[in-house]
Amino acid sequence: MTSTALLTDQYELTMLSAALKAGTAHRSCAFEVFARRLPDGRRYGIVAGTGRLLDALDDFRFGPEEIDALRPVLDDDTLGWLADYRFGGEIDGYREGELYFPGSPILTVRGGFAEAVILETLILSILNHDSAIASAAARMVNAAAGRPIIEMGGRRTHEQAAVASARAAYLAGVDLTSNLEAARTYGVPSAGTAAHAFTLSFAHADGSDERAAFAAQIDALGVGTTLLVDTYDITTGVKNAIEVAGPELGAVRIDSGDLGVLARQVRQQLDDLGATKTKIVVSGDLDEYAIASLRAEPVDLYGVGTSLVTGSGSPTAGMVYKLVEVDGVPVAKRSSRKESHGGAKRAVRAARSTGTIVEEILLRDSTRPEPGVAAAPIPGTDGLDVSELQIPLVRGGDRVEDLPTLEESRKHVAHGLVTLPWEGLGLSHGDPAIPTRYLNEPESR
Amino acid sequence: MTSTALLTDQYELTMLSAALKAGTAHRSCAFEVFARRLPDGRRYGIVAGTGRLLDALDDFRFGPEEIDALRPVLDDDTLGWLADYRFGGEIDGYREGELYFPGSPILTVRGGFAEAVILETLILSILNHDSAIASAAARMVNAAAGRPIIEMGGRRTHEQAAVASARAAYLAGVDLTSNLEAARTYGVPSAGTAAHAFTLSFAHADGSDERAAFAAQIDALGVGTTLLVDTYDITTGVKNAIEVAGPELGAVRIDSGDLGVLARQVRQQLDDLGATKTKIVVSGDLDEYAIASLRAEPVDLYGVGTSLVTGSGSPTAGMVYKLVEVDGVPVAKRSSRKESHGGAKRAVRAARSTGTIVEEILLRDSTRPEPGVAAAPIPGTDGLDVSELQIPLVRGGDRVEDLPTLEESRKHVAHGLVTLPWEGLGLSHGDPAIPTRYLNEPESR
Repeated sequence: MTSTALLTDQYELTMLSAALKAGTAHRSCAFEVFARRLPDGRRYGIVAGTGRLLDALDDFRFGPEEIDALRPVLDDDTLGWLADYRFGGEIDGYREGELYFPGSPILTVRGGFAEAVILETLILSILNHDSAIASAAARMVNAAAGRPIIEMGGRRTHEQAAVASARAAYLAGVDLTSNLEAARTYGVPSAGTAAHAFTLSFAHADGSDERAAFAAQIDALGVGTTLLVDTYDITTGVKNAIEVAGPELGAVRIDSGDLGVLARQVRQQLDDLGATKTKIVVSGDLDEYAIASLRAEPVDLYGVGTSLVTGSGSPTAGMVYKLVEVDGVPVAKRSSRKESHGGAKRAVRAARSTGTIVEEILLRDSTRPEPGVAAAPIPGTDGLDVSELQIPLVRGGDRVEDLPTLEESRKHVAHGLVTLPWEGLGLSHGDPAIPTRYLNEPESR
Repeated sequence: MTSTALLTDQYELTMLSAALKAGTAHRSCAFEVFARRLPDGRRYGIVAGTGRLLDALDDFRFGPEEIDALRPVLDDDTLGWLADYRFGGEIDGYREGELYFPGSPILTVRGGFAEAVILETLILSILNHDSAIASAAARMVNAAAGRPIIEMGGRRTHEQAAVASARAAYLAGVDLTSNLEAARTYGVPSAGTAAHAFTLSFAHADGSDERAAFAAQIDALGVGTTLLVDTYDITTGVKNAIEVAGPELGAVRIDSGDLGVLARQVRQQLDDLGATKTKIVVSGDLDEYAIASLRAEPVDLYGVGTSLVTGSGSPTAGMVYKLVEVDGVPVAKRSSRKESHGGAKRAVRAARSTGTIVEEILLRDSTRPEPGVAAAPIPGTDGLDVSELQIPLVRGGDRVEDLPTLEESRKHVAHGLVTLPWEGLGLSHGDPAIPTRYLNEPESR
C-alpha cells in the first residue's frame, strides 16, 4: 500500500490541530461536494472518479513515514491522532456516471469535523479531475454519433493523470485507450499499432522505404493491422499499403491535414483498389467540434488525444467541498459572490414518463425516505417520475458492498445521456440542460 | 520500486514487436523532443520535469507483473526482450529550468530504435505536464513583481499531478505550496492555516462564533498565523481578528470579492487598529492577469490555485518526440502542415554582452565541440556571447552525476527570465521572445 495521506493541503492538518486543542474535533459534521456552475457553456456534467476515490480512501493512512514527514509542521497530539486515523463516518453520493448540474450534492461526507475535514483535498482532486475528463469525453462520444473513439492523449498530460483520464473517458463511452496502465489497472480495452517513427526507421541513405515498414508491420501484427499512411505522401501511402497488405488490410490511419477531404479521397482510393472493407482511422487535434464536423465523412474510428485528457478547454470541474452542517445546525459562508446553500441535502430528479428529465430538486435531508418506505410526494412533481440521486457509498468507514462496476457505470452514462432534453446534447454554449430547484431551504448560521 | 513501464502507449510496444521481427530494432537512432509552437500567445517556455523524468527512467523496467499484463498484446519474443530491458543509450537535453522556444531540441535520446522508441510516452507525459505548469507559473511570478506566491491548487487537478505541479511551480519561482506530498518528496516549502470550514465549525444553534474560531486557531498555531476573515463579513472579521489576536497578528486572508478594493479597505482598517505589520494574503481565482492588476494594491502574498495547476489556459506544452536520425541518415515526416526538421541538432543561444538574449540557433549536431575544445565561430554571431544549451543527462543508460538540484534549477529560471528582451516578459499575446534560426539544415529522408 502506498499512502495517499499526504496528497493533502497543509491547512487541513493545521485546522485539525486547532480543532483538537479547542475540543471541537468531534463535532458532528456534514460536508458536501458540489460545483457552483458547469464549465463555460456546458449543459451537463458527468460524475467520475468515485471508484478511484474509494480506493484512495482505503489508503488514506498516516504510517510512520507520513508521521515523520509531518513532524516539522504539527504538534505531538495531532501526530498521535493521525497515527490512529481511519475514517469511520458515512459517505453518500451520486453514483459514478450520473449526470450532474450546478449545485448537485455529488458527495456528502458525514463524520466528526476532524475526520471529515482532512479528506477535502483528496476527494476534490480525484472528482475534479476525473469528472472534467468524463464530461468532455461524453460530448465527444455524442458528437461521434455511434462511431468508436480511441483515447490516445496520455502523452499530453501527467503520467498518472493519463491513466485516470483513460478510465474516465471509457466511463463516458469512449471505446478504447492507448494507455497500457489503464488496461492493466482498470481493464479498459487497449489498442495501438505504429507511429511515424516506425516508418521513418526504415529509411536509409538512398531514401525512404515505406513499403518495407508496412511489410514488417504486417509480418508482426497481421493483415488486420492499421497502417499509418501519411508519413510521406498519403496517396502513395495508401497505394503502398494495399499493394503490400492486399485488400484485406484492416485499416489505414491519417494523422494530419484536412481530415474530411483526405478521408473522402482515401475512401475512394481504397474502394478503387478493391479494399472496400479497409477502415479509415483519423487523428490529429480532434475535439468534439472537429468530430462533429466529420459526421458526413467516411471515417470509421476517431483517435482523440490532447482535448480529451485536458477536458477540452475545461481541465477541472471546479467542484468544492463545503461544510454544510455542524451538530445539526445548517452553516454556510455568507461573504460576497460565493453564495452557498447550508444544510445537508437530499437530491432527486424528476422525469417525464418518456424518460426525459425535467428538473433537479434539492430538499432538506430530513425528507429522505427510509429504505423500503415510499417517499412523500414532492410539490411540483405531479405526473412526473421522481428518482433519488444519492446512494450509500461508505458506512462506518467501510465501502458499501456491490457498488456499480466500471462497466455498469459506463452503461449508466449512456442511459443518462438519453434522458437529457434534446437541447441538452447541443455542443454550442448553453445553459444547464435542466434547472435546479431548492425546496424549503433552512436558514444557515 | 513501482514500475513506470506501463505508462506507455500500446503502439510503442507493437512497433517494438515489428522491429524485432524485421531486424531493425538495433538501428542506431536519435529522437528529439521539441514543441512546434509555444502555447497560444506565449513568449517563452520553461523546461520542467527533467528531474522527475530521470527518476521515472530508473523505474522503467518490465517485471513479472508487467510482463503478465502484456501477454494478451505481445508475442513471446517481444516479452522476453522487455523482461531484459534497461535503457543503455544516451540522453542530452536543455537543463531543467532553461528557457525554450519553438523548435528547441529540449531532449535528444540516442540508442537503438527499440530501446529509444518505447520511452516516448513517459518522456512526453512528464515534460509536457511539468513544462506547461512551470511556463504558466513563471508568468505569475513575473506579474507578482517580487511579492511571494503560494501554490494551492492541488484540489483542482489529478492528485499526483498536484504534486508535480507544486514542484514545477516552485522551480519557476513560486515560493510555497499547500501540498504536503510535494514538501515530503521534493522539499518544496509548505504552508497553510485554515479554511472557511474551520470558522463555520464553531457555529451553533444560536448563531456563528467567528471569535471562538480565531481564538482556537491562535491557541494552536500562535499569533503569527493567518486568519481567514471573509467567512461572514470582512470588516467584522478583521475587527474580530485583531481583537482576539492583538496587533501582532501575522496575516489576514481574503478569499472572495473584489480583491483590490478589499485589500485597500482591510489595510486601512488594520493600520487604524494598530496592526501595521499584519500582512494581507489574497486568493480566489487568481491568474497572472489578476496578479498584475493587483500590483498597486497593499497585498503581501498571493494564493494561486486553479490557474497554476492547469497551466493558465494551456494545460499541456504540446511537445512531441520525433525520430530525426537513423544510422546517421536524417529523417523527417513530410506530410502536410507538420513540418519537421530532420537530423540530430546542436542548440546554442546568442546574447549581447549585457546578457540579453538575441537568437536561438540550431546547427548540425556534428558541429558540437568536444569537451575542452573551443567551438568554431557561428556565422551571424559576431560580438555576441554564444552558449551551448544541451547538457549530458544520461550516459550508457546511467544518469550523469552532479546534475543541477531543484534549488539550482530554480535559480536558473530566475536568471533566465532576466535575460529575456523586455518585450519577452509581456503578459499579452505575442510572438516568441527571440527567433530560432536553422543553420545548414541537412536534407531528410
